[in-house]
Amino acid sequence: MDLLSIENPNFLKKMSNPELEQLSAEIRKFLIEKLSSTGGHIGPNLGVVELTIALHKVFNSPQDKFIWDVGHQSYVHKVLTGRACEFDTLRQYQGLCGFPKRNESEHDVWETGHSSTSLSAAMGMVVARDLKGTKDHIVPIIGDGALTGGMALEALNHIGHEKKDVIVILNDNEMSIAPNVGAIHNMLGRLRTGGKYNWVKDELEYLLKRIPAVGGKLAATAERVKDSLKYLLVSGMFFEELGFTYLGPIDGHSYEDLFENLQYAKKTKGPVLIHVITKKGKGYHPAEQDKIGEWHGTGQYKIDTGDFLKPKVQAPGWSKLVSETVRNLAREDERIVAITPAMPVGSKLEGFASEFPERMYDVGIAEQHATTMAAGLATQNMKPFLAIYSTFLQRAYDQVVHDVCRQNLNVFFGIDRSGLVGADGETHQGVFDIAFLRHLPNMVLMMPKDENEGQHLVYTAIKYNEGPIALRFPRGNGIGVPMDKELKEIPIGSWEIVREGSDAVILTFGPTLQMALEAADTLEKEDLSVRVVNARFIKPLDEQMLERIMKEDLPILTMEEAVLQGGFGSAVLEYAHDHKHQVLIDRMGIPDRFIEHGNVSELLYEIGFTTEHAIEKIKAMVPSKAKGL
Amino acid sequence: MDLLSIENPNFLKKMSNPELEQLSAEIRKFLIEKLSSTGGHIGPNLGVVELTIALHKVFNSPQDKFIWDVGHQSYVHKVLTGRACEFDTLRQYQGLCGFPKRNESEHDVWETGHSSTSLSAAMGMVVARDLKGTKDHIVPIIGDGALTGGMALEALNHIGHEKKDVIVILNDNEMSIAPNVGAIHNMLGRLRTGGKYNWVKDELEYLLKRIPAVGGKLAATAERVKDSLKYLLVSGMFFEELGFTYLGPIDGHSYEDLFENLQYAKKTKGPVLIHVITKKGKGYHPAEQDKIGEWHGTGQYKIDTGDFLKPKVQAPGWSKLVSETVRNLAREDERIVAITPAMPVGSKLEGFASEFPERMYDVGIAEQHATTMAAGLATQNMKPFLAIYSTFLQRAYDQVVHDVCRQNLNVFFGIDRSGLVGADGETHQGVFDIAFLRHLPNMVLMMPKDENEGQHLVYTAIKYNEGPIALRFPRGNGIGVPMDKELKEIPIGSWEIVREGSDAVILTFGPTLQMALEAADTLEKEDLSVRVVNARFIKPLDEQMLERIMKEDLPILTMEEAVLQGGFGSAVLEYAHDHKHQVLIDRMGIPDRFIEHGNVSELLYEIGFTTEHAIEKIKAMVPSKAKGL
Repeated sequence: MDLLSIENPNFLKKMSNPELEQLSAEIRKFLIEKLSSTGGHIGPNLGVVELTIALHKVFNSPQDKFIWDVGHQSYVHKVLTGRACEFDTLRQYQGLCGFPKRNESEHDVWETGHSSTSLSAAMGMVVARDLKGTKDHIVPIIGDGALTGGMALEALNHIGHEKKDVIVILNDNEMSIAPNVGAIHNMLGRLRTGGKYNWVKDELEYLLKRIPAVGGKLAATAERVKDSLKYLLVSGMFFEELGFTYLGPIDGHSYEDLFENLQYAKKTKGPVLIHVITKKGKGYHPAEQDKIGEWHGTGQYKIDTGDFLKPKVQAPGWSKLVSETVRNLAREDERIVAITPAMPVGSKLEGFASEFPERMYDVGIAEQHATTMAAGLATQNMKPFLAIYSTFLQRAYDQVVHDVCRQNLNVFFGIDRSGLVGADGETHQGVFDIAFLRHLPNMVLMMPKDENEGQHLVYTAIKYNEGPIALRFPRGNGIGVPMDKELKEIPIGSWEIVREGSDAVILTFGPTLQMALEAADTLEKEDLSVRVVNARFIKPLDEQMLERIMKEDLPILTMEEAVLQGGFGSAVLEYAHDHKHQVLIDRMGIPDRFIEHGNVSELLYEIGFTTEHAIEKIKAMVPSKAKGL
Repeated sequence: MDLLSIENPNFLKKMSNPELEQLSAEIRKFLIEKLSSTGGHIGPNLGVVELTIALHKVFNSPQDKFIWDVGHQSYVHKVLTGRACEFDTLRQYQGLCGFPKRNESEHDVWETGHSSTSLSAAMGMVVARDLKGTKDHIVPIIGDGALTGGMALEALNHIGHEKKDVIVILNDNEMSIAPNVGAIHNMLGRLRTGGKYNWVKDELEYLLKRIPAVGGKLAATAERVKDSLKYLLVSGMFFEELGFTYLGPIDGHSYEDLFENLQYAKKTKGPVLIHVITKKGKGYHPAEQDKIGEWHGTGQYKIDTGDFLKPKVQAPGWSKLVSETVRNLAREDERIVAITPAMPVGSKLEGFASEFPERMYDVGIAEQHATTMAAGLATQNMKPFLAIYSTFLQRAYDQVVHDVCRQNLNVFFGIDRSGLVGADGETHQGVFDIAFLRHLPNMVLMMPKDENEGQHLVYTAIKYNEGPIALRFPRGNGIGVPMDKELKEIPIGSWEIVREGSDAVILTFGPTLQMALEAADTLEKEDLSVRVVNARFIKPLDEQMLERIMKEDLPILTMEEAVLQGGFGSAVLEYAHDHKHQVLIDRMGIPDRFIEHGNVSELLYEIGFTTEHAIEKIKAMVPSKAKGL
C-alpha cells in the first residue's frame, strides 16, 4: 500500500494477518530507504514493526494512549499516524522529530528522549482516567534497558501496589544501546531461555496429582506447595511479586502471539506486563548482525552493503580523545576506575574496557547509582572517571550535590555532548550543565578550547585531588590542532589570553573560542582591537585576570553554548558586582527556551549565536571606535 | 557501664549476650534521656540498638565499613564509637551532627541525609576493596522505605549482577517516616507474615521424594520442579532473582538470631541480604505505640508521659497552610490531585487524604516517579499538586527539566522547607532550589512574604494553566498576620512595594522581607530612605518595576536565603546588563559552601545574613547619605 497516503491507523482494523505481514515488509523497506539518507534510529524501529502495528490494530489511539519510552522507536508509530510523508526531513531543522512530539500528532500523548519515564507518565494518566471514569487503555512500551533506570523501578513498585489497569509492554530486545547489564537483565535472560511455559504447566499439574494424599501438617505443606506453584507456572515471578500479571515471553514478530496476548491483557484487571521478545534491526541484515550497537542510531548508509557514509574527519573525536587519555593515564595510575551508565560505545570506552576490564563498570541506565558509586570509590582513595552525557547527568543532580560535592570527593566527571547536540533535539541538548553545576560548592568545571588542551585538562583532572572536577566537552570532533606528546597540568582556575586586544574582551571557552577569534579578526579590519580569553575554567574563575580586565574598564562579552540564566556570563556579572566594578558586560548564550532538533549551526543562527552577532555586540559596546571616531 | 567512657567498640568483643542485653537497656535509657532535651530521631534509633551492637561485635569497624542509609539511625553507632559525651549538643550549632559525619569519627565512612544512597556507595567501596585486594566487609544498612528509592533499586540491580561480596542489612521496621507504600513493601509484608520457612523445607523434600519416578519428557519436568524449589525454600525470591543470597526474616532484637545470620553472611560468597525485622521506638512505650510517625523525629518531650514540649506558636505552620488551602480548593476544582513522596505527615496532607482519598497519592520515597507521574496527570488536564521538600526535589531535577518544563505541563510544585532548615544540617538545607529551577524555561517560581500572601499564591498556582508553577515556602510557621477570607489571584510576575523609599531599594521575598523592613526602619533613623520590594515572583521578574527602579538609578540590595551563584540576585544582575543599566547592585545570600546544622539564626549570623549586614551593605552603596552629607 501507499504508506504516504496513511492518515490514521484505522485502516488496520480490517486487515488480515497476511495483509499485515505485507504491510510490515513495506514499512521496513520504507524505513531502510528513508533512513539511509537521513540517518536515525534504524535498529530499534525495525525491531518494533509488528509490535507497533499490533498495538494500533488492537487499541484505539489516541483514546487509548501509547507511551513510547525513550521514544526513538516511534518511527513506525509515526508512519501509521499519518507522518510517512515527512520522513525526508527526519531529525532535521524544523523537520520531523526523532522522538514523539505532542505538537506533531494527537497520537503522541507523551514526549520522551530520556529513558525510563514511561511508567510514571502512564501512572499519572491512569489516575486521571480513573478519576474521570473513562475506559481508555494506557499502554507504556519500555525496553529492557530502560526498565533498569531507577525511576522505572520506582514506578513499577507504585503501579504494582495501586493495582490499577495498565498494560506495560516490555520490549525485550536483549540489547538497548549497549549490551545490557544488571541482575534484572540476567533474570530476563532466564525467562527468555526458559522457553514456553505453557506446556510445563500442564505437566506440572499432572505431576502434582500424583503426589499421594497426605494428612495433618503435611497436608498444609502440600497446599502450600500448590499455592506456591504459581511461581513455577508463572515464569515472570519477579513481576508477579511486584503485583503485575506477567504474560510471556512472546514472539514480538508473530502477529498471532501479539494479538492473543494484547487481547488477553485488555480483559485483565489490574496491571499487566507483556514480555515481548523482539530483534533489533529485524529484516535488514547489517542491522540484525550488529553486535556492538552501531546500528542503534546511525548516520547515512549504503542500503545494499550496510556501509556507513561517514563524513571524512581528520580531527579526533572528543569522546575518544578523553577516554583514551584516561586509558593511557590508567596504566600508571592504579586508582583510576571508569564508570559509564550504559554508554560504553558512545563514550568510546571500549579500549579502556579491553585493557582494564576489572577497572571498568558499565552499570546500565542508572545515572544516580553511577554517580554515587563513583563517590564510594573516591572515599577509598580511588579516582573514578564517570563518563556521562551532559543531558543524562541531569538525572544525577542530587547525587552530585549530596554525595560528591558535599563530601568533597575526588570524582572526575567527563561530561560528554555538552552544548547543542543537533539532531537528537531538545531532550538531548547539553545546555543546562553549567547552570546546574556552577552553584555547587567544591565543584571545578572546565571546558577546553581544543583537543590538545583537552588532553591536558584530562591530565589535570586526574592529578587533581582536592575534590570533584568536571570536564565538559562537545559532541563531535576536535578542530585538528597538533597534539603535544607530553601531558601537563594546567593550574586550576587559570585562563589564557589567546589574542591580545585593547578595546574589548571576549571571555569564552570550548568550540565557541573559534567564533570569538573570527569575530576579533573581522573587527580588527574595522580598527577594533579585541582581546580573546580562553576561560577554560568556568569555575573557579581566574579572578586575577578578571580583576585586571575589569580594572582596565574594558567592555566584556561572554560567550557560552549553554543557558544564559545562571551560567558563566552570570558568574562574570556576579564577580563584577561583588568587587564593585561598573563595567559593560554583555552575554551570548542559549535563551530561556528549549531548543529543538536541527543542524547545530542552524540552531545557533536561530538563537542569534554567530560570529556576526558577536561582532554586533562588541560594536554596540564600543560605539565610538566602531563608528571610526 | 559508663557509656561516656566508651572510646571504641572493641569492648563488645568480650561481652556475653546477657551483658549485651544490659548494654542495650543502658543505651536506650541514655538516648531517651538525652533526646528528651535535645530532640532528634528517637524512634529509628531505639529500633536499631541490638542491630548496631551486633554489627559492631561481629565486624571490625572501621576496617569493616558500615554505611547508614539516610543516617538518622546512627546514634547508637555514635555512642559505640566514642561520642556519647557529645549528645548534649546533638543537632545543635557546632555540636554533634544528627547524621554520620566523616570529620567526627573514622567509623563514619560515608555521610548520608538523603535516602537510598548506601547501596551505591557500598558498591564503590566494594570495587575499591577488590582492586586493592583487602578483605574488609562492606555493610550498608538500609530501611524498607529507602529501599524503594530508585537509586537503591538501580544499585541492587548492579550489585546482584556483579556478584561481589557485600552484606546488605535490610532494616525492616514496617514504617519509614510514613507508613510505607509500594509493591516491594507488600512483598516484605508477605515475607514477614510467612514465618519461618525452615520447617517447610524439610517437609517439602519429604513430599518431593514421594513423587513417583517418571521417564521421558516428564522426567525433565520433575527436574525442573526440583530446581525451581529454591523459590519455595527461599522466601526472599525477589532478592534471589536479583542475584542476592537472602537470609531471614530475622528478629532484629534477638542477639542470637543476629549473630547467627551475620556470621553466616560473613562466610557467604557474593551479595547477601539479611532481612532484619525491628520495631521502631522499641523500649519506650510512647514511641512504640506511634502509628503516624510523630516519634520518627521529635523536639523535646517529657520522658514519663511522652508529651511533646512544643513551643507555643500562634501562627499557622507553612506546610499545613499550603496543604489545607489546596484541600479547600479541591472541593471546587476536581482536577486537583495531591502527590507526596513519602511525606504525608511532614507535608500535612492528612486532611486532604481523609477528605479525598482517591485524589491523594503517597508514592513512597520516589521523587522522580512522583514528579513524572504529576506530569502524566497534567497531560490529561488534571492539576497535580506535588508536595515536596526543597532538598528532595533535587532528586527530580531531570524530571522537572525533561518531563514537566520541556512539555510545559501544569504541575504545581509546593516546595516545602526552602531556605535553611536548621538542625537537620547540610544535607537538608533547601538552598539550591532557586539556582536549579530558575534556568528552566517555562517555570514560574514564587515565594510569599507571609502566610496570607501564601494562601493567595496557592490560589494563584491552582488557577494558573500556562505551565509549571512552584511555590517555595520555609520550614516552620508564619508570622501571625491576619488571614483574608477571600482568596485572590496575584498577577504572575508582579512585585509589590511594601515600604516606600528614595535612596536605595531592597528586593527580597519570603521571611527575609521582615529583615529588610527592620533594616529600612533602622536606616530611616539615619535619614536613609529605603524602599522595600516584595519580589514574590523569583521568575519571571517584575520587569516593569525593575525597569523603573533601574531608571531611577537607585542602588539595589537583593536578599535571598539561597545560594548566591545563579540565584535571584544574579537574575537582577542579568536584567540590569541585558538592559544596559549601570546601577549599583549588591547581593546577600548563602555563600559558596555547605552550611552545617544549627539554629537558623545562628547559621544566618555565621554567614553574614542579618539585619545588621543589610544595613551595612545599604550604607556602603549610599556613602554620601550614610555619612550624613
